[in-house]
Formats: sequence, structure tokens, C-alpha cells
Amino acid sequence: MTAFAKTPRNRVKRLPERAAYDAETIYKILDEALICHVGIAQDNQPFVIPTIHARRGDTLLLHGATTSRLLKHIQAGNPICVTTTLLDGLVVARGIFHNSMNYRSVVLFGVGRVLDDPQAKYDALLALTERVMPGRWDDARLPNKKELKATTIIEMPIESATAKMRVGGPKDDAEDYEKDWWAGVIPIEQKFLAPQPDPKLYKEIPVPRYLKNYTR
Amino acid sequence: MTAFAKTPRNRVKRLPERAAYDAETIYKILDEALICHVGIAQDNQPFVIPTIHARRGDTLLLHGATTSRLLKHIQAGNPICVTTTLLDGLVVARGIFHNSMNYRSVVLFGVGRVLDDPQAKYDALLALTERVMPGRWDDARLPNKKELKATTIIEMPIESATAKMRVGGPKDDAEDYEKDWWAGVIPIEQKFLAPQPDPKLYKEIPVPRYLKNYTR
Repeated sequence: MTAFAKTPRNRVKRLPERAAYDAETIYKILDEALICHVGIAQDNQPFVIPTIHARRGDTLLLHGATTSRLLKHIQAGNPICVTTTLLDGLVVARGIFHNSMNYRSVVLFGVGRVLDDPQAKYDALLALTERVMPGRWDDARLPNKKELKATTIIEMPIESATAKMRVGGPKDDAEDYEKDWWAGVIPIEQKFLAPQPDPKLYKEIPVPRYLKNYTR
Repeated sequence: MTAFAKTPRNRVKRLPERAAYDAETIYKILDEALICHVGIAQDNQPFVIPTIHARRGDTLLLHGATTSRLLKHIQAGNPICVTTTLLDGLVVARGIFHNSMNYRSVVLFGVGRVLDDPQAKYDALLALTERVMPGRWDDARLPNKKELKATTIIEMPIESATAKMRVGGPKDDAEDYEKDWWAGVIPIEQKFLAPQPDPKLYKEIPVPRYLKNYTR
């Protein structure tokens, strides 16, 4: 996949100069985001649920409990929309109307299918785990049969997608630039603090190297 | 409003001990979050779009361009779902299956209506601005008639809502506690960095006090 076609479903009408349809841009944002918001529609009633995701090529992986209503709805073949947003800054403009945020968001569309094969489920859990905590899979107790059975894995080929972004400083009306209002950007970062050991560790165990200085 | 009734729409079935239905808990999370994800359904196709919000009592305010398809769909009286999620930590368990995240999320349901009255629109923009940047309204160029006209304001009485949260360390299987795997939490914080002045400031203007050390 190099770029997604612009269709009525994914085309950005408002401020189209902020949109991107190439897979590289879209996947970079998707991969950086820790969680996404999954939307489903039931009889014209939308539901939006946060969850973690992983990407494998042009496919999105989601998981959850086999009892999950969200996942049951998805596995019935209903279309879903998956959105994730990274906030990069508060944009402070001279004119209130031009206040904004710097962000990078992606919106994906597709239909999910359930992975039934135990090996495929195992591989998907590996992908979901390693995406959030690279290195952890080889340093933990791996999922057993019962746990695999209790987990539903959804695989969604990404049919259509868009990225939308804003970067840079405020864009004000020409006549406001020579006024005495401060203007600029307050950058936002998602910061990961030092790992806090579980008080229930049975002995002192050093923080593994792959978890130290965690960043995305 | 002190608490929302549990109905099939907002009731948390999976891990119900993580759910809360009281307005105080729900509104605190909603107010802390800078943005939300709005879900709509069009012919069984969900769309999930990030945007900023403000709360006024038991009402949610959204805004956008009058040309916005999302807002047009909302103003036609279709139900919406508004979800926001604050990430607080990566939970590293001994068993992969027990890996988790600490988070606080809210899911709101309702039907929006458009505010037409210019004064009501003005007041809503004030609420939206002051929620993100308290103090800014009195130190900027206020919206003019043309800008007000270009803005649609949606007011959504919050009909139904739920909060869902996870706090604390990993919960592992009893037999895994005496193993040598590290376990714990990597806390996550949304961090606001020092304000960066717009290179187009026409002279040196100090950062206003209300924007210094910005936090939520």
C-alpha cells in the first residue's frame, strides 16, 4: 500500500491542506499512538470505545475479551472506524477564532474478522505486546490455552484511511499582527516516568533494560 | 445531576468494578481531557472525529466550521457518542495476558442541537476558550460577526454517561508472583513545555502569566 484512494468516506473537506493519504504518514502516526478509539454503529446509535491496537502491514489488530459486545459487533461483519490522535501543542493566536491545536490524527475504515487459529491468535498477541513493550514477550509468562481462549483477536484490513495534521504557529488576520497580544505555541509531550516496581515483587528485581527510559 | 442511570446503552459489562456512573467522577475526567472523540453513525457506517469540547453543567459544547459534515449530521438530530481517554500508565504484569494500562475514560451519549442566538454562540466560544486557556479571553482579539457566523456551536445535554478506570499495579496469577520477572507500572503524564513565542511577534512580548507553567 503506498496511498489510499480519496473517496467520500475518507476525504477531508475541511482544511484539505492538512490531510494526507499516503500509507507512510498514516502508519507512522498509527504506530506511535498507544491507543485508538474504535467506533461502531448499532441501529444509528454510535459507540466509541478506547482500546490498544497494533498494525501488521496493511492490517490492524485489536483484541479483547470474548465476551466483549464491541468485538461481537465487529465480528458480525459490521463496518468500523478507528481513530487515533496525538496532541502536539496548544496554538495561541492573537484572534480567539484562530486558536487551535497542533495534532496528528488518523482515521481508518474497514471490516474486521476474527482470528480463530490458535497460532494466529498467539502471533497477534505477540504483535500487540511487542508494539507497546518491545522486549517483553521474551521476559514474561506467555499466554496459556485458557487465556488464548478467553481472548478474541480481530484483524481489520485497512480499506481506507486518512491522516490529518496541524503543525506550526498561529495564523492570524493580517491586521492583528501589530497588536500587543502574545502569540505562540505551548508544546505538548506524552512523557513516560521512571518505572515503579510492583510492591508485590517477591525480591528485588532490577528494571529490565527494555523498560528503562521508555519512549515512543 | 448526581448520577446517571445504568441502562443497556451505558452499562459496563466487562470488568464492571472499573465503572462509575456518578457525575462528579465523569465530569472530572471530561474536564481534564483536552480533546474528545465524537462518534456518529451514517447508514451503519461509523465515523469518529477528534475535537475539543467544553462542559457547562450537564451539557457538552462542541464547535466547528458551519461547513462541517460532522456538525451537520449532529444538528440533524442524530444520536452521538463522545468519548475521551486519559492514559496514566503502562501496567507491566508477569503474565502477558495481564498486561494492561492505567487510564480514565468517559463515554457520553446524547443528541445535539445547534445554538443559533449570537449571544449564546459568543458565550459558548468563551466557555470553549477559557476551558483550554483560562485567562485568554480577556487578552486577545474577540470573535467578530463574520467569525461567529462561520462557527457552528453544538450543545448536547448529557443524557447518559459512564466512566471507566483502571488504577494500580499488575494483577497476576498467584503462581506467577514468585518468579523472577520484573513487574510494575510505567506512569504516563501529559507534559506541557515552555511556551514558544510566534516568530512573527512584531516586538518582544512577555509570555502572559496565565500561560506560564500551563498544566491541567
